[in-house]
This record gives sequence, structure tokens and C-alpha cells, in this order.
Amino acid sequence: MIGFCLVGGGFIGPLHAANIAAHPAAKLAWVVDLDQEIATKVATKHGARATANLDDALLDPQVGAVMICTPPRTHAAIIERVARAGKAIFCEKPVDLDLARVDACAKVLDSAGVPFFVGFNRRFDPSHRAMHDAIRAGDIGRPEMLVLSSRDPEISPPDYVAAMPFGIFYDTMIHDFDMVRWMLAEEPVEITARTACMLDEKENPHRDPDTAMVMLTMESGALVHVNSSFRAVYGYDQRIEAFGSNGMLISRNHQPTALERYDANGVRQDPLLRFFIERYAESYRRELDDFVRAVETGRTPSIGLRDGRRALEIAEAAVASAKSGTAIPL
Amino acid sequence: MIGFCLVGGGFIGPLHAANIAAHPAAKLAWVVDLDQEIATKVATKHGARATANLDDALLDPQVGAVMICTPPRTHAAIIERVARAGKAIFCEKPVDLDLARVDACAKVLDSAGVPFFVGFNRRFDPSHRAMHDAIRAGDIGRPEMLVLSSRDPEISPPDYVAAMPFGIFYDTMIHDFDMVRWMLAEEPVEITARTACMLDEKENPHRDPDTAMVMLTMESGALVHVNSSFRAVYGYDQRIEAFGSNGMLISRNHQPTALERYDANGVRQDPLLRFFIERYAESYRRELDDFVRAVETGRTPSIGLRDGRRALEIAEAAVASAKSGTAIPL
Amino acid sequence: MIGFCLVGGGFIGPLHAANIAAHPAAKLAWVVDLDQEIATKVATKHGARATANLDDALLDPQVGAVMICTPPRTHAAIIERVARAGKAIFCEKPVDLDLARVDACAKVLDSAGVPFFVGFNRRFDPSHRAMHDAIRAGDIGRPEMLVLSSRDPEISPPDYVAAMPFGIFYDTMIHDFDMVRWMLAEEPVEITARTACMLDEKENPHRDPDTAMVMLTMESGALVHVNSSFRAVYGYDQRIEAFGSNGMLISRNHQPTALERYDANGVRQDPLLRFFIERYAESYRRELDDFVRAVETGRTPSIGLRDGRRALEIAEAAVASAKSGTAIPL
Amino acid sequence: MIGFCLVGGGFIGPLHAANIAAHPAAKLAWVVDLDQEIATKVATKHGARATANLDDALLDPQVGAVMICTPPRTHAAIIERVARAGKAIFCEKPVDLDLARVDACAKVLDSAGVPFFVGFNRRFDPSHRAMHDAIRAGDIGRPEMLVLSSRDPEISPPDYVAAMPFGIFYDTMIHDFDMVRWMLAEEPVEITARTACMLDEKENPHRDPDTAMVMLTMESGALVHVNSSFRAVYGYDQRIEAFGSNGMLISRNHQPTALERYDANGVRQDPLLRFFIERYAESYRRELDDFVRAVETGRTPSIGLRDGRRALEIAEAAVASAKSGTAIPL
Repeated sequence: MIGFCLVGGGFIGPLHAANIAAHPAAKLAWVVDLDQEIATKVATKHGARATANLDDALLDPQVGAVMICTPPRTHAAIIERVARAGKAIFCEKPVDLDLARVDACAKVLDSAGVPFFVGFNRRFDPSHRAMHDAIRAGDIGRPEMLVLSSRDPEISPPDYVAAMPFGIFYDTMIHDFDMVRWMLAEEPVEITARTACMLDEKENPHRDPDTAMVMLTMESGALVHVNSSFRAVYGYDQRIEAFGSNGMLISRNHQPTALERYDANGVRQDPLLRFFIERYAESYRRELDDFVRAVETGRTPSIGLRDGRRALEIAEAAVASAKSGTAIPL
Repeated sequence: MIGFCLVGGGFIGPLHAANIAAHPAAKLAWVVDLDQEIATKVATKHGARATANLDDALLDPQVGAVMICTPPRTHAAIIERVARAGKAIFCEKPVDLDLARVDACAKVLDSAGVPFFVGFNRRFDPSHRAMHDAIRAGDIGRPEMLVLSSRDPEISPPDYVAAMPFGIFYDTMIHDFDMVRWMLAEEPVEITARTACMLDEKENPHRDPDTAMVMLTMESGALVHVNSSFRAVYGYDQRIEAFGSNGMLISRNHQPTALERYDANGVRQDPLLRFFIERYAESYRRELDDFVRAVETGRTPSIGLRDGRRALEIAEAAVASAKSGTAIPL
Repeated sequence: MIGFCLVGGGFIGPLHAANIAAHPAAKLAWVVDLDQEIATKVATKHGARATANLDDALLDPQVGAVMICTPPRTHAAIIERVARAGKAIFCEKPVDLDLARVDACAKVLDSAGVPFFVGFNRRFDPSHRAMHDAIRAGDIGRPEMLVLSSRDPEISPPDYVAAMPFGIFYDTMIHDFDMVRWMLAEEPVEITARTACMLDEKENPHRDPDTAMVMLTMESGALVHVNSSFRAVYGYDQRIEAFGSNGMLISRNHQPTALERYDANGVRQDPLLRFFIERYAESYRRELDDFVRAVETGRTPSIGLRDGRRALEIAEAAVASAKSGTAIPL
Repeated sequence: MIGFCLVGGGFIGPLHAANIAAHPAAKLAWVVDLDQEIATKVATKHGARATANLDDALLDPQVGAVMICTPPRTHAAIIERVARAGKAIFCEKPVDLDLARVDACAKVLDSAGVPFFVGFNRRFDPSHRAMHDAIRAGDIGRPEMLVLSSRDPEISPPDYVAAMPFGIFYDTMIHDFDMVRWMLAEEPVEITARTACMLDEKENPHRDPDTAMVMLTMESGALVHVNSSFRAVYGYDQRIEAFGSNGMLISRNHQPTALERYDANGVRQDPLLRFFIERYAESYRRELDDFVRAVETGRTPSIGLRDGRRALEIAEAAVASAKSGTAIPL
């Protein structure tokens, strides 16, 4: 039974808290949040203790692992504190938005020798994983093209956008960059990116890119396309298509029900699930399970700091290409 | 090259005329209709001759085959005249609505020895036929259940309904009864039918059944369900499902385009094709081709008088069951 | 917070135990099983107490509700004991297989005045419920036909079959009979049933029906078809189709992933989920939630003894019709 | 009734010949082919006259229109001869592979003033056209992204590939470039292209690109992706997806039947139609009809030389980008 300390009780925190509480081999011991009220609210629901001071939890010998769900820019410092305390770490993506900062983290983690996991949860989605396993098993022969559609139903609030310009690459497509590396089991060597501001001034006051397309060339010569938008009115659009010498795989979208409605206007089904937390509910459960099993058995967690760093590097190159209009080698 | 005489230029007649004209081994020579104007209109379009008198055409040695598209109650007499003239016969279903009359026809056909084909066109629909071939090839093992949905977008005009009470069995499900025999390659031994009048007085003034369900038991013990309605507002609904010891086959509906529309209300596709002539356009072409090849090569046409008679017998039993409330042995 | 006592730790018991443990307003207090080892195993996992003696739990004031998951023939006696102890009751279907016994239960329940719920979980499946709500909202106008496919991937073990002859009606279609009543919000007035033994001697040594079709007429005249089989090799096949004056609704099957595989042989998707516990996982969670909220708020649980009795009555009539070959009025 | 002369009796010629023969307002008068035998074969089937000399046909006053189906490099010269003879022209795409040559043609056409049509048949596919009409009607609001998949089941024979290097742009994607302009009703301003040789030496001895991705930026800022391959083993893959401020449209692939096969391995449907002539059969019929009606009524044909020239220009820029690695302004 692994005792968890959750750091960051907002947004995605309560989801992870519930998954920890429901996991047969995990237990939520502490919830840490600068806002004591939030910490208390999440902790109470699952019989855990609350604090605004991370050290309270790190000193508790029952805590074996720390899950970091705070805003991205705080990740690196927390990772280092937790690593020095010798606890296993599950960190939400991204590790940090600055590569040098990530590298500094890496050194601390290396010397601390604690298990470290980055939460690229999509690797654990049953459909995406079935695709991955099929590619790896050779079902489509040699992979030749990968096409990803990764669209959000709406843009983040203005202050969130202001805090992370080019979030379409750093926050959204970073998941897809990780998917590309994982699906193809190889690295990209070049990227070209183009962006647009399609939302109006009111929705997107900072004129940060809200629409983007990216083209990647992989080491093997395989070609990759990713597209993204912040206003898919029909829901959270998440598709991956892998084309190879022996066939094609498509991981389709999910809908909340399996109901079809026929009338004089046609055949209608539900809009797509709107919220990533619903769409990837199963992924969040499974990534936790993967991390818990890694910590239990002592094996290296399946997604490490290097994966987080590499996705960030690609996002950075995407920004550079979008700004310069040229292809950026990786 | 087989010269055709088309008898009956209304309704389904022009479709058959066009298919004959387009067929590489057939030629439309005559169009016969009591209404000389109709005959002329159809004939002119395809460079054929028009007459109100069937004998004009039967005396023409260039006529090798006659296609009968007149109202059902006139079929038997025309069949006998054409048979005595020694021409091959393609007759729209049903042969007649009276079994004794069908049997009288059979005798004339037997002594004339001319090729005879009943137009159960659905046997030639590519999807239904692929299902048939898969069943016959053993793809689903032993067939155990068959489920057919056979629904029209609207009821026939009142005078048509008045002329053929229980048309839901005699005119619509008669196709399905033929499908059942053909798909399973065996005969039903019992039928139970239930009907309802769901349309209002205005749409269905004669209160003839507009909704029906039927349950059949086959010789092998396989169970069959057929349902029908005269107001499928979403289009012409034509599905067949075959369940067996090794799997299931579903012949789905057809839509006019392959377009999907996603918006905030969901995902929408076209309504089904509304008109049976569009839905079964390919079947009509292929059944003609089958008949032409049979006449050319001298093989017996693939759907004979016995098939027409048998489907009628089942329809009659359906009516008896609906009226009496009891199961009717076949 | 409602303390639950689970009676019956085998089969469906552990699923309910986990759902109770995960529910925010419920707590698993006791697990009762004649086999103390089973009781202990289930109880330990969720921090509950175990016993072979139901009275131990009934005497515990922390127990507010009892969930009955024992074999059907034991339900009635347990219901009566629990009712007399004044606890709320969640009973797996069927209540009993004997109508007189059900009626005796009803009297005890009436005088005890405890909340009682029958676990027809399918009413809580999101797709079926969306269909129900759409019908009730008038989306398809007047309902005219209902078609249900309800097929299991395999037959129950021989001893289970021997203990409950005609299980295809009493155990499987009983769910569909409840669906029919719930979807259409009216009662059937007549039933006709036909069965077959399609499995071989080895799989079905008792020659109990393993394949069945049923036709029902409702008070409104609406027609209903249900079909069932015990060998759907492609998985657990659960579909409902409602046809009405303004359209049609189809609640389709579920698949474990949304992956499509294209190759030279065609386009392939996963087989259906095989196990009803996976297929209806969400239904089990939601029915528990419905029961908990009813008990909390004092409202009558949404599925009562009368519903259980009525579904059983229809199943009994189905058996009578299958045996006699005649239609049975209800 | 418009008399047609078909020039080029091979490959796509017989298809056009049959469509002309079947069209109510068209008649096949002449078939011209350097190989007299081919000309005769096609002509005989439809009661037309055959010749190896185009002038024979151009001198026939019954010829009102000429359909050009010869190899691309012969188009320009034939267009000029036909234009000078004052006949309407239907020319298969591409007009020519050299822009200067196309411009020379344009001058001749301008002074001759004859109707001219380029056969970008995909504009007449019912699904693509429904998408086009929906976009133009504003159904998805402002178009923001377009994603096209355009994959052939196999590469052309080596000599065909040798005769037209970069055929993946000049021969295949040229259709997509036309689709992009037509769907969005605006011009691209920049293109980036990447290619790969994925087929082995035996299949692709000339190492001409067999796999390609392209990214376009449109005047409005909308982003476009096109991908193509010459070995889609699952059939002819033709999909278009339009994303806009109010929704998304997808024109899906076509399959030869609507049959679904369920077994223990999953649910299987037919592979896609393999041959473009089957997939776009309806488009070929409808583009002819559009041309015939334009000639009849005197309106300008809906796809003109400028469209052919523009698609060629984009293809040329794609080649330049693939060779240089830079983005090419248009």
C-alpha cells in the first residue's frame, strides 16, 4: 500500500485524489495546497490530512509517493524538493516550460534516484494503446504516415493564455508530440508549423494562436501531421490515424451514449464528450495504476523525464517554425 | 441481342425500360400500354414502338421476351397470352393474389415451356446477396435466427389500398417472405402475425393494417422475425440480420451521401434513401441481367413461378393469422 | 452515509461491494455468506465485517440497507427477514420464480414499510436511458414498435440450467420484459413465444431452450419483438430499437475500444464486450446511486416489487406460450 | 442532342463513351484513336464511327463536342485543333504539365470562343458536393482547416512513373489542390511539401516519391493538409474533412456493400472500393451532365482552363518545396 501526497488540489487534483483513493494498492495520505481550504476540502472527502506546507507531508514516513498537480511553472522546484526527500514522483505534464530548468531537475532526480513519472495520460487510453500495440506488433507493417487531430472545444481563460503564450504547442500539442514518439518509437528530425488566430478579439484577446498545423519528418522518413484548434464546437476531438505498408489504424472519437436518432432530418448521434477529464477518465485511472505498479515492483516508470523534455523540445521547435516560417531541424 | 416488349408503361415500367435500353445484350422493341399516350412516351425515349394492343408486339419475331409491369390483377392473363406466344417472361411480383389463378398460370407455362422469371429484385441487391452468399458459404455456421425490418416511408394512396387489403403482407412483406426462403434455403412451417392501424383516419381511411410483425418457424427450427410499417419518416428502412452458430451478418441501410455533419447538437448523417427505386436501383439492373443471361444461355431463370407462389402462400397465412389470432401451419 | 450489508459474496456480489465502497454516501459494513471464507474475502477488501449469519448484520444499527445477491430461490425468505428488521432492501432480480411467493413477500414488505428496490440495472444504462427519456419526451411521437436483441455469448453451466428451466425467459428475457414496460410506459396484453435448442448435446445437455423469439402486443396496440440466444460468439449483444410516428431510436452495442483496423481484408473493429458486468458497469453504479438517493431522501425507489412481479408474470406467460404454441393473454 | 467525338479509346475512354451513350441529350458520334482497332472496338459498342484521324470527326457537322482522353502530353495540341474547328471541349485533367503550354492553349481558346471544361470529376461526387454546398451555405461558419486524405491502392506502372516524375503531385494531389480551391472558394498563398519513397526498389524502381504530405496556407489564413500514398492496401482512400467555427464536415469513404460481419474476431466490413472508376462512377456521370447542360444552354462550363492551370501551378510549387525543403509562396 503506497501512501500518496497530492500537491495541488485544484483543477485536475480532485480527479487524481479520487483515483488514488479507489486504487487497491494506493492510499491518499496528504493533500497539500497553498490554499488551505482547498486542501482541506479534497482531503476530507478521502480521509486524508491537509496542509499548506509540503514539508508536513514529506516528513511523514507513510508517504511513499507525491503527485504534483500544481501550475506548470511550479513543477521544477517541487520536483527537486520531493526528490531530495526521497519520495517517488508522479508529475503532471509539462515538467517545465524551460529546457534548462528541466535539465537542472534531471540532475537532482539522477542523484536522488527516486522513481519519476510524467503524466502523459493519453498513452493509457485503451483505444490509443490498442493502436500502439498493433503498430508495435507489426499489424500495419512499416508505419509511413501518422495523422493526429487534437482539438479542444474552447480556448483557456485569458489569464491562462497570457501566462503561457503558444499554449497550442506547449499545452495541447505537447500531448500529440509525445503520442508521435510513442506510437512510432522513433524521433522526429524536422518540424514545420503554421498557426492562425481564428477566434475573435473577445474570445482570444491576446491574439495567441488558436489554430495550428504541424508537419514532422521522422528518422525513418515517416511523415506526420498534427492539427489543433481551440473551438471544436462539437466537442473534444481526439483522433489518431496510423498508415503503414500493410494497412491503417484509426483511433476514433468517443461519444457519451450509443444512441442513434433517426428522423426526417437524418440520423443523429450525441456530440462528442466535451471535457478531457471525461474523455480520458480511463487513461487517468490506468496511468496511476502503471505508476503504482512501477513503484511497488521497483521497475522504472514507463514515462520518464526524458520523454517530458523531448516533447517540450518539439513544442519549442514548433513555436520557432511558426514564428520564422522555416522548417526547424530537431 | 434480345428484343423486349414492355407491358405497362406506368410506375416501375420506365425504370425497366431504361435498364433494358442500357443492357448490352437487350433492346427495347415495344412498349404496350392501354393508355396509348403513356406507351408512346416511354417508347419514344428509347427508340421503341408503341401500341395499346399486346398482340402487335407478340407477333413481332424480333420480340424474344416480355416484361410485365401492369397492375397485379392483370398479370395472370397476360402471362398466359405471352406464354402461348412462346416468348420468355419477366413478371413483376406478385404473380397474382389468388393461388388457384397462379396454379392455372403454372399449367399454361408448363405446357408452353417458356422461361419465366418473377421480379423479386431484392435478391440482387449487392449487400443482401453478399449476406446470402456468406450464409451459404457457412460463414455464420448454422443459421438460427433471421430478423428483417422492412418499412416504407408512406402508405399507398387510398384507392391502391382499397384494391389490395392487407397489402402490408401481399405487397410489402411478400418481398421479405421471399428473402427468408432464399437466405435460409429452407421453408417455413408456421407463421404468427399481428397487425395494427397506427396511421390516422386521414392517412389510412380504409383502416387497413399499416404496421405488422410476423414470427416464422422454419423446418430446421430456425426462428424468423419480420416487422413492417407504412410510415418510416426517416426513409425507406431495409435491414436484414442473420444470426448463426458462428456469428452474425447485418445488411444495413443505404444513405444518399457519405457526409457526416458535426456541430454542437451532435453528429448527423443524411436520412435514408426514401424511394425504393433509388434504394434498389442496382438490384433492378442486376435482376434484368440475370434474366437476360438465363434466356441467352437457356438456363432456367433463377426465380421461378414456384417462388412467387410460395411467397404468396406465406402472405396468405399471415393474413389468416392476423385475422384469427392463431398460429397458422404452412 | 448509509451502511450496507451485502448478502451473497459470489458472482455479482463483489461488483456491488466495490460500488458501495466507492459511493460517496454509502459504506460497506457487513458481508454475509454461508461460506464464511467468501464473506471474509469480500469484506476484507473493503474494510467491512464478515459473517455467515445474517442476524449479526441485521442487529447492527449502523446497517441501514441490505443488498441481496444470493441465488434467486433464496431471495423471498431473505427479503422477509430483512423487512422485519426494518432495513431498506436492494434485491437482485428476480424477486422469486413463483408468483405466489412474490405476493407473500409483498404483504410482508407492505406491513414493514421499508424501501424496496429490484435490480433491473439496464434501466440505468446511459444509452438505454437516453432512449427512454427521448421516447417519454415525445421525440419519436407515438411509439409503434419495439425490437430488442438480447443475446449472451454462452449458456450457463448445466447445473444452473437444471435449477431454472426456461432460464432464457426467467433469467435473460426478464430484463427485456422490464425494458419493454419501462420504455413504453404501458403493459403488454398478449404474448406469443417460440423457442429452439440450437446448441449441441454437450453444451446444452438438459435441452433447455437456448434460442427464443417473443412477440408482444401492448395496450396501445404497439407491437414488440424480443429475440435471445445463448451463443452470440461475437460478444454480449444488447440492442434496443424503438420505432414511432416521428422517427426511430437505436441503442447500439458497446465495444471495448474505438479502434478501426483497415487492411486488404476489410475494416475491422473489436468484438463486442463479452461480459455483462463490463457492458453494464455504468448501470450497476447508477442503479446503486438511485437506490442510495431514494433511501436518503425517503422517496420510493424507482423500481419496486410490482415491477419485479410483472416481469415474472410475462416470463411465465412466455413459457406457457412456448409450451402450448398458443398466444397467451396477459 | 449533342454529338460527341471521343479522342482516345483507352483507359478512361470507354467509361466516358458509355456515359455519353447513356446520356439523354448526348450521342456518341465518333471515336478517334491512333490505334484504329481500339477506336473501332469502342465505337462499335455504341453505334458510333471510328477513325485514326481526328479531322474526319471534326469535319462532321453532327459533332458538337469533343472529349479528350488521350495521354496528358498530347492534350494541348488536340485542344488547339478542336478549338479552331469550333467545337466544345471536354478535356481530361491535366490540361498539360507545362504552364507556358497551358497559356498558349488559353490564347487559342480565347480567340476561338468555344466552351471548355476540365474533368476534375471529384467536384461532382455527391458526398464531396454536399460538403461543398454545406460550406458555401455557411453550415460550419468560417472554414478554418481542411484535411484531405488521397491514397491510391498501388503505384502506376514504371513507364508511366518515368514519363511523369512527381506524379504524386502532378497526377494525384492535383485533384486535391482543385478540391481545396473549390471547397474554400479562395486561393492558397503558400505551400510546404515533404515526400518519401516507402515502396521497395521492385515496386518503385525510379524512386519517385510514393508518399507525400503537404501544408497550405490560404488567403483567409485557413490551414490545409493533404496526404497521399501509392499503397493503401485497404483500397482507394478518399476522405475530406472541413473544420470551421460552427462545426465539422467529413466526406467518408465508400464501400461496395453495406454488410457487417460479426464473429469471435470482431466486426468486419468490406475493404474500400479499390478502383477510382468505381469510386467516382457517379461523378463521371454528373460531370458529363454538367458539361452537356452548359453546352446546351450556352453557359460557361463550371470548371475552366484557369482552374486547370491553377491546380497545376500548385502542383509545381509542391514539387519545388519538396526539392528545396523551403516553403514556396504562391
